[in-house]
Amino acid sequence: MHVDADRLRADIEANAEFGDVAAEEGRGRTVLCGTEANRQAREYFVDRLDDAGLHVDIDAVGNVSGTWTPDSADETAAPVAFGSHLDSVPEGGIFDGPLGVYAALESVRAMQESNVEPERPLVVVSFTEEEGQRFADGLLGSSVSVGKRSVEEALALEDSDGTTLGDALDDIGFRGEGLLDASEWDAWYELHIEQDTQLERADVPVGVVTTITGITHCEATVVGEANHAGATPMDERTDALAAAAEFVLDVERAANSVVDDSSDSAVGTVGSLDVSPNATNVVPGRVEMGVDVRDVVYQSMQTIVDAARESLTRLETERGVDTEFARPFDLEPTPMADRLREAAHSAGKAAGIGTMEMHSGAAHDTMHVADVTDAALLFAPSRDGISHNPREWTDWDDCAAATRVLAGAVAAAAGARADE
Amino acid sequence: MHVDADRLRADIEANAEFGDVAAEEGRGRTVLCGTEANRQAREYFVDRLDDAGLHVDIDAVGNVSGTWTPDSADETAAPVAFGSHLDSVPEGGIFDGPLGVYAALESVRAMQESNVEPERPLVVVSFTEEEGQRFADGLLGSSVSVGKRSVEEALALEDSDGTTLGDALDDIGFRGEGLLDASEWDAWYELHIEQDTQLERADVPVGVVTTITGITHCEATVVGEANHAGATPMDERTDALAAAAEFVLDVERAANSVVDDSSDSAVGTVGSLDVSPNATNVVPGRVEMGVDVRDVVYQSMQTIVDAARESLTRLETERGVDTEFARPFDLEPTPMADRLREAAHSAGKAAGIGTMEMHSGAAHDTMHVADVTDAALLFAPSRDGISHNPREWTDWDDCAAATRVLAGAVAAAAGARADE
Repeated sequence: MHVDADRLRADIEANAEFGDVAAEEGRGRTVLCGTEANRQAREYFVDRLDDAGLHVDIDAVGNVSGTWTPDSADETAAPVAFGSHLDSVPEGGIFDGPLGVYAALESVRAMQESNVEPERPLVVVSFTEEEGQRFADGLLGSSVSVGKRSVEEALALEDSDGTTLGDALDDIGFRGEGLLDASEWDAWYELHIEQDTQLERADVPVGVVTTITGITHCEATVVGEANHAGATPMDERTDALAAAAEFVLDVERAANSVVDDSSDSAVGTVGSLDVSPNATNVVPGRVEMGVDVRDVVYQSMQTIVDAARESLTRLETERGVDTEFARPFDLEPTPMADRLREAAHSAGKAAGIGTMEMHSGAAHDTMHVADVTDAALLFAPSRDGISHNPREWTDWDDCAAATRVLAGAVAAAAGARADE
Repeated sequence: MHVDADRLRADIEANAEFGDVAAEEGRGRTVLCGTEANRQAREYFVDRLDDAGLHVDIDAVGNVSGTWTPDSADETAAPVAFGSHLDSVPEGGIFDGPLGVYAALESVRAMQESNVEPERPLVVVSFTEEEGQRFADGLLGSSVSVGKRSVEEALALEDSDGTTLGDALDDIGFRGEGLLDASEWDAWYELHIEQDTQLERADVPVGVVTTITGITHCEATVVGEANHAGATPMDERTDALAAAAEFVLDVERAANSVVDDSSDSAVGTVGSLDVSPNATNVVPGRVEMGVDVRDVVYQSMQTIVDAARESLTRLETERGVDTEFARPFDLEPTPMADRLREAAHSAGKAAGIGTMEMHSGAAHDTMHVADVTDAALLFAPSRDGISHNPREWTDWDDCAAATRVLAGAVAAAAGARADE
């Protein structure tokens, strides 16, 4: 089975033209869901699916899929699906999403040109708005595809100008019918760039994800009393920032403790902190913080979140502040399917391409799909770990190598006999 | 000597009309230097000086003064000056500044109507832009009056639109000639609202300031490395916010230590803190902080600033961050003149009005004037310590009581025999 590296590159580079932005270094694009750039990217993709003879479907929330039912396949068998997304963050890179979409299409083309004979239909997928930059928090199309959000709810989502997803899809001609139902798939693969440096440092071209970390976002608020910094003696203050500083260090300490004791993939981060009134000469009256907690072991996340809550309780007692704590976002860790991981390692071995196991610290559509069918996530290296940035880069050789492993793994999952 | 409380109130209330802003609670005004509201406030003040028979001067930077040379005075003797300022912060209160200006004028009127016979001329003063909201950092008119800033430098100061102080004063007809030279005064008094709660809590109507605290402002920057909060293990981070949290607590600890060891008026505050990129899911890469350090003992301030520097040095070693430290603003503590403080206490005692000693944690024009002549600062109570806010309030009875003490003190400083 021969993956055509030039054809893959040509698709990714053609896709990079849509929403192209000037960048001092690298190559950037802004492709928000439902925009003209998104229409162009979708139409180019549909044309490529057509060219390869795939049957194109657009579902009610704009998820695009192309189905290939080879002669060797039982057309009633549950298909194997694979893909990623075509939208980007503002001024994002050209690989995050498109690599996985066009690697899936190139895999089909490679199978079509080889003697590989899948027993199941194959479905190439581009999910709507993975990045969550306009209508939702992220993973929008896949959330509908797995039934976590209804079509009606999704179409009614509004952007900051009050435009609904439904109207935006109508505008670009990509509001279709029916639902791309992930629960009907026998298996799902996604290839994505790593967005970290583990592969680069190990000099291995393909990562096979064992578990996508669970993610909790917490909002912690500390309320003290804003006062004149000159006229308020030290012992009469309720300084919200000093209390918040203890909280920041407590969260860090709790995460380090979990790393030392049990799980070295655990992380706890106070990433945002906003002070009011935030003037040099005023004792801070209020601090709002955003906390990110992740691990492949849910209990580790729970331990860090508990420590954060306990920190606030202690600060209420010791510093007289009021505190608030919310946990608006919580996703448990998502293990990938063993059989699909093994198929990926085997495909790498067969093709002479190195693979290594790793966890994913970032969220992907695959998190949702894994709830309704067997799923796997592969990574290609990211230079310096940079993503969501025009400097995001994956060498073309690595793109091709990862696509070769993807194609082999999907072919195996679809019941094809290996051709090498 | 009889202070006319109603006349004083009428002036302050008339002045409150200029730049009047709608406020949910209390009474607010916005009177920035060189604006139409400032012109109105200045013209009203000049008219009141005229009405009282004072000789009005407008100097080259818009400082307004009215001189009364009673028959009892030696017109060649160095005068006693007193006053404050008429400008405000945006949506400020109606007492901060105007109380001191109109209390000085009312004191002259009270002396004129009594048998008090000052041996020195009296000068009622309103300094240009004390609040520093448009052209400078604050204390602008007094800085020129004491020679810390030249007239040329001051007139060339630009606001955010590029308008110079000179042009703004021309626009409102208040660019005069010559210089109101504070070094020619034998003594200076300022009455101001306290902006804290010491008088309120002690139920004493007049504070006599012993020392205006020194003030240092520092800028501390911590530079780490911004990274994906999910994909960056705890032991591979250089988290600028966690380092900054240690700094915040080190500054607090240093100030508390100075309070315990030597000077209970020492304060150290990290009042502002800005995180970049400040997103929940990104390890903070950079934190900029504003630090305010004050005390009546300069060595205490130095101890706290030294501790802040040492904290950054330690964090460079222990956490691998880069740090920067600047000290762009530094004013030493300013002691008030003993003879003028004693005169104020005596005036209170003679009038049956309670006085108490206290330090000032806030800066005032008097800080500058004290560099060139004997100076004193009196405080009237601020309800709940609130200022720079429409809810700023001083009871009219307290305004009159403080004015009565001011008048008695100034009369004594000007060599008048007490009339009671």
